[in-house]
Amino acid sequence: MSTAGKPIQCTAAVAYAAKQPLTIETITVGAPRAHEVRIKILNTAICHTDAYTLSGADPEGAFPVVLGHEGAGIVESVGPDVTNVKVGDHVIPLYTAECGKCKFCLSGKTNLCGSVRDTQGRGVMPDGTSRFTNSKGEPLLHFMGCSTFSEYTVVADVSVVAIDPTAPFESVCLLGCGVTTGYGAATKTANVQKGDTVAVFGAGTVGLSVAQGAQRREASRIIIVDINDNKEKVSREFGATDFVNPTKLPAGQTIVQKLIEMTDGGLDYTFDCTGNVNVMRDALEACHKGWGTSVIIGVAAAGKEISTRPFQLVTGRVWKGSAFGGVKGRSEMGGLIKDYQNKKLKVDEFITARRPFAEINDGFEDLHNGTCLRTVLKF
Amino acid sequence: MSTAGKPIQCTAAVAYAAKQPLTIETITVGAPRAHEVRIKILNTAICHTDAYTLSGADPEGAFPVVLGHEGAGIVESVGPDVTNVKVGDHVIPLYTAECGKCKFCLSGKTNLCGSVRDTQGRGVMPDGTSRFTNSKGEPLLHFMGCSTFSEYTVVADVSVVAIDPTAPFESVCLLGCGVTTGYGAATKTANVQKGDTVAVFGAGTVGLSVAQGAQRREASRIIIVDINDNKEKVSREFGATDFVNPTKLPAGQTIVQKLIEMTDGGLDYTFDCTGNVNVMRDALEACHKGWGTSVIIGVAAAGKEISTRPFQLVTGRVWKGSAFGGVKGRSEMGGLIKDYQNKKLKVDEFITARRPFAEINDGFEDLHNGTCLRTVLKF
Ligand SMILES: NC(=O)c1ccc[n+]([C@@H]2O[C@H](COP(=O)([O-])OP(=O)(O)OC[C@H]3O[C@@H](n4cnc5c(N)ncnc54)[C@H](O)[C@@H]3O)[C@@H](O)[C@H]2O)c1
Ligand SMILES: NC(=O)c1ccc[n+]([C@@H]2O[C@H](COP(=O)([O-])OP(=O)(O)OC[C@H]3O[C@@H](n4cnc5c(N)ncnc54)[C@H](O)[C@@H]3O)[C@@H](O)[C@H]2O)c1
Ligand SMILES: [Zn+2]
Ligand SMILES: [Zn+2]
Ligand SMILES: [Zn+2]
Ligand SMILES: [Zn+2]
Repeated sequence: MSTAGKPIQCTAAVAYAAKQPLTIETITVGAPRAHEVRIKILNTAICHTDAYTLSGADPEGAFPVVLGHEGAGIVESVGPDVTNVKVGDHVIPLYTAECGKCKFCLSGKTNLCGSVRDTQGRGVMPDGTSRFTNSKGEPLLHFMGCSTFSEYTVVADVSVVAIDPTAPFESVCLLGCGVTTGYGAATKTANVQKGDTVAVFGAGTVGLSVAQGAQRREASRIIIVDINDNKEKVSREFGATDFVNPTKLPAGQTIVQKLIEMTDGGLDYTFDCTGNVNVMRDALEACHKGWGTSVIIGVAAAGKEISTRPFQLVTGRVWKGSAFGGVKGRSEMGGLIKDYQNKKLKVDEFITARRPFAEINDGFEDLHNGTCLRTVLKF
Repeated sequence: MSTAGKPIQCTAAVAYAAKQPLTIETITVGAPRAHEVRIKILNTAICHTDAYTLSGADPEGAFPVVLGHEGAGIVESVGPDVTNVKVGDHVIPLYTAECGKCKFCLSGKTNLCGSVRDTQGRGVMPDGTSRFTNSKGEPLLHFMGCSTFSEYTVVADVSVVAIDPTAPFESVCLLGCGVTTGYGAATKTANVQKGDTVAVFGAGTVGLSVAQGAQRREASRIIIVDINDNKEKVSREFGATDFVNPTKLPAGQTIVQKLIEMTDGGLDYTFDCTGNVNVMRDALEACHKGWGTSVIIGVAAAGKEISTRPFQLVTGRVWKGSAFGGVKGRSEMGGLIKDYQNKKLKVDEFITARRPFAEINDGFEDLHNGTCLRTVLKF
């Protein structure tokens, strides 16, 4: 008997309060309304943004909420007026929507669609309500328009893309955030060209994906900077030509001086993949005078600000940022999946642990061990 | 009898110490050495950078020095190996050199030539010595590779461009800095396109030149922001469609909010032409999410830093800067002169006072009256 049009009861991990473990419980997921899609999630990974919100450090984080935004699954049912996906499609939920109609989508200059931004930020569906309720009948908030920490979730139709059904859910769920973010930052936002020199601060999933994007573009030099020596091996596997630990420089030498010395004047492109505002400054100042461009990807702690002397910019450095790698999810996900299938884009290599969904709290713990890239959960 | 190869005695204004009036006296200007050009200056204007250095606020300012960098004149003689200009050529000295051979010139990405940077910064000719001596035989420093506050000056051959001899010195001397800086920032650094919206902070020579560059590119909206209401009329003459005084907004409204409201989300391009780091931040934050680009032109006081939340960049705003408008002086000055001659570029309109060179200290005073754009001095 079809579940279409009816509420579904299923397992989810609910965040009731900051700094508390998630509660695994049965929740009710309402039927999709107009322009909404209900998805059976098969796999989801845990990203630092989930941990950031759970930590309570995000001033916009609200509870109770169903977190998770790196997932993949199958469309269970669709509400009225949904035309872009159909029941049975394999899909990836997108925290960066793409409506194709708003000022942003039509600009041709950005992937930041404005269509569902306000409601997504408030943790509700575009009609202002939630599809999630717990056993006490309390509504639960949505998260980043995705909420993949539930066996079933409901997303806006502009926030989901159908993918090649032969692609493995366990791997391509990572394209929902980290891998796409880094790879796109290198190949789209920065648009690294053959021969360019690149420095990447932070060798997590995002930074390593920047490195593989730079390698794909045949950058002449890819320097990965990380405070954790355990990251050297994996950095080289993802394309780094050099690895520098900024805490182990000779006394008196800064990482900026080191990078400028290594590259005879500075980098063509640098990327912050740490979220540390001091690193963001170093990344800018390690750029080559006249043209070096620094891209901020990391998410800083609430209230933190970046600073530099304006002279750094007047003498030709450029400071920009990247969200979801500048990638338009609905238009461009297919290409990334193909690249993965053709072995041009590493994805499986980021999976450092696999766990049943019930171990989600252990998955959050994994983030703290020094070699974790992504823990993938399976329903 | 030709003066070539011999020292010349002439009038100059010497800055002996910070915060002191310039001393008008006879100095000796040595003959040009290899790759050097001696120029008889006909006209020079006074720019805020001269005043900045004279104020003592510039940590790199050194004394005694012959200031001035917005000038025009005639080549009196050339040293060995000079091929780009010859005796009698009408010329403009360039504080941004163009050698055509260094890493910067060859990059195709910047106008910041590296050929004479170090010695220019130290106030000497590329061979490490000065061509200026006062009556006591003391050497005087050069300034910005130009030193136009002397009837005769010596510059590196990479720091001078020959111009159409029919162009009036009195006007085109302004192309040596302010006008070119603003106009180039709009048309080259930002590369404003038809229909773009633009906000310019500061309606001095630089800001008004940004406005005329934006107008030339058919920007749909050119909002000039200045704390001085006397600048409204001239702003509109230079192309502003709107003028906003940020000190006269309704209580509780910031200039950023005002500009975002006026433009339904923010500007495509903003320009700081004030040198105030708080204004630089406002200029960035008034940019449209997704693509708005802010260009810093103003020179900040020593030690001042710019700041913002990194989220401003992650959500698509771009922060950059511009020196000499991104213009390559030797390659591109000819085009600017033609634009001026064809009445596509306003230059005469910036001259708000004309004075004999002897009144140079009064010219510095002019900078403080609220309607001064440029005072042009005549030898
Ligand atoms: N802009 C976006 O769209 C977007 C999307 C996803 C993630 N992010 C952000 O990107 C950042 C990286 O994510 P991740 O999943 O790769 O994180 P991660 O924690 O796995 O990796 C961060 C790496 O940075 C290193 N590091 C920490 N401090 C450092 C320092 N001072 N210098 C050098 N290296 C340092 C750590 O050792 C670690 O290897 C996070 O801030 C995350 O929130 C942004
Ligand atoms: N980057 C370069 O290559 C370059 C070249 C030349 C000049 N500059 C710099 O450009 C700046 C402008 O030069 P200029 O000759 O036009 O100066 P100016 O003093 O004639 O004009 C500055 C204008 O800014 C206005 N202003 C001051 N504070 C303001 C505020 N808080 N908000 C809005 N407006 C404000 C003033 O009223 C004035 O009209 C200076 O900092 C100068 O040093 C840079
Ligand atoms: Zn994420
Ligand atoms: Zn859209
Ligand atoms: Zn100047
Ligand atoms: Zn050069």
